Amino acid sequence: MSENISVLGLGLMGSALAASLIEAGHRVTVWNRSPAKADPLVARGATRAATPAEAVGASPLVIVCLLDCPSVHEVLKEAPLEGRVIANLTTSRPAEARETAAWVAERGGDYLDGGIMAVPQMIATPGALILYSGSQPAFDRYEQAFTAMAAARYVGTDPGMAPLLDLAMLTGMYGQMAGYLEAAALVRSAKYPLTDFTTELLVPWLNAMAAQQPRWAEAIEAGDHRTEVSNLEVNRAGMENLVRAFQEQGVKLDLLLPMKTVIDRRVARGLAHEGLSGLVEEL
Amino acid sequence: MSENISVLGLGLMGSALAASLIEAGHRVTVWNRSPAKADPLVARGATRAATPAEAVGASPLVIVCLLDCPSVHEVLKEAPLEGRVIANLTTSRPAEARETAAWVAERGGDYLDGGIMAVPQMIATPGALILYSGSQPAFDRYEQAFTAMAAARYVGTDPGMAPLLDLAMLTGMYGQMAGYLEAAALVRSAKYPLTDFTTELLVPWLNAMAAQQPRWAEAIEAGDHRTEVSNLEVNRAGMENLVRAFQEQGVKLDLLLPMKTVIDRRVARGLAHEGLSGLVEEL
Repeated sequence: MSENISVLGLGLMGSALAASLIEAGHRVTVWNRSPAKADPLVARGATRAATPAEAVGASPLVIVCLLDCPSVHEVLKEAPLEGRVIANLTTSRPAEARETAAWVAERGGDYLDGGIMAVPQMIATPGALILYSGSQPAFDRYEQAFTAMAAARYVGTDPGMAPLLDLAMLTGMYGQMAGYLEAAALVRSAKYPLTDFTTELLVPWLNAMAAQQPRWAEAIEAGDHRTEVSNLEVNRAGMENLVRAFQEQGVKLDLLLPMKTVIDRRVARGLAHEGLSGLVEEL
Repeated sequence: MSENISVLGLGLMGSALAASLIEAGHRVTVWNRSPAKADPLVARGATRAATPAEAVGASPLVIVCLLDCPSVHEVLKEAPLEGRVIANLTTSRPAEARETAAWVAERGGDYLDGGIMAVPQMIATPGALILYSGSQPAFDRYEQAFTAMAAARYVGTDPGMAPLLDLAMLTGMYGQMAGYLEAAALVRSAKYPLTDFTTELLVPWLNAMAAQQPRWAEAIEAGDHRTEVSNLEVNRAGMENLVRAFQEQGVKLDLLLPMKTVIDRRVARGLAHEGLSGLVEEL
């Protein structure tokens, strides 16, 4: 089904989103503060709006992808939101999303907040995912249109939920990246080929370890951190060994030292028999 | 080919190793400080040795799996190492492995150091891997016997290399785990079902991100940290947003704060245009 959709904000991400909607056959109206950013999209069939109000007025579904949350308020403040669906894909914190949802509701609009799990180059490719939270009727009405941009997943009525889960995924990625950087520094210090190590050893190992995470999730949900595999005492000794090996190789283990601190703290509480999942109680 | 193999040290791991060798049809002699640990293996066909010297004397291949490196010296100091292959699978640091290799060589033995990438329950299953470094002739001679315990991979003549790569893989795992724990704490704070989040969102995302690591390896090996995807300025802003969101949700981001510190330091050096791979230069 072909929809009328407006896209506000044509940075790299907004432009990629608008292009994917044009490609899918929707009638797309675009607006950007510096109008030249709209040129390539207009050349592909988009309609240029002169003001945010004109762009919002042109379509019942308005996709917003700006720099930050204050920009969203600034751009939408004189636009006719009444009866429209505002799908705000601007990076926001959960608290900001809840506040913007209330602000849009006061103006008679229906609100969805989105978390984009992709870089612009990935939009409209199979790996891209956008999480949505807020108005369920709005999501159901436009789910098909959303899938032109990326796989679409609705995660709940709390508008803050999509950005929260987005941030949780980024958090997981930063931890994985921290581990990678430390591992790479150690391997480099021994002059072992890093690409070999990464491809042949580390990536299959990390995938096997990630496959254990659903069990940690169950332990955390149950509040039962007993383990028969590798308890905190074993990990405390392992971490001390790691610290010493890094020192001996002349590499700083800075990115992972808090893990050691938290394991030590947990052991000091008399919980050496528990598994690593119990560390979540210290956060 | 059936070999004569001795196994010294019958903790959970040593017992699992010995059992896998018996199962594969080798003639196995076992020794443990407290002899009762040998009973289940003797019942399956192993020969019990009364002393370490007797165990070492019984076989040309001696697998050692003790508590730590000092125990290895203590147990082997009166054993006839001349002409034997000592495969030391005791957890060691690279420096310890190099030192033990020299000590064994002085006594006329051939040395391999091993890093076991498995818990005891995984021994002799497809997921288990043991890295070996040291004497290449010794590895070649016994590679087939080693595969009864786990997939066997030779990583170089430096005896410290297997423990170093083992520690690097653990390092990667601790980072991934730190990220998981922080993500789980955030998701729990919003009362979203953690098992759903882990299975449906996080694990596929982490696998996709791990698939990018070979590119980071290339960047690090080339010393070229330029990026067109997500530079340090973008990550600096993302990390600030993360810190604030965790504060707003009442969750401590302690495990990942050094990542922020190192990104900030790198940006302060004027390298905001580089990618995250450049952080390795700060370690």
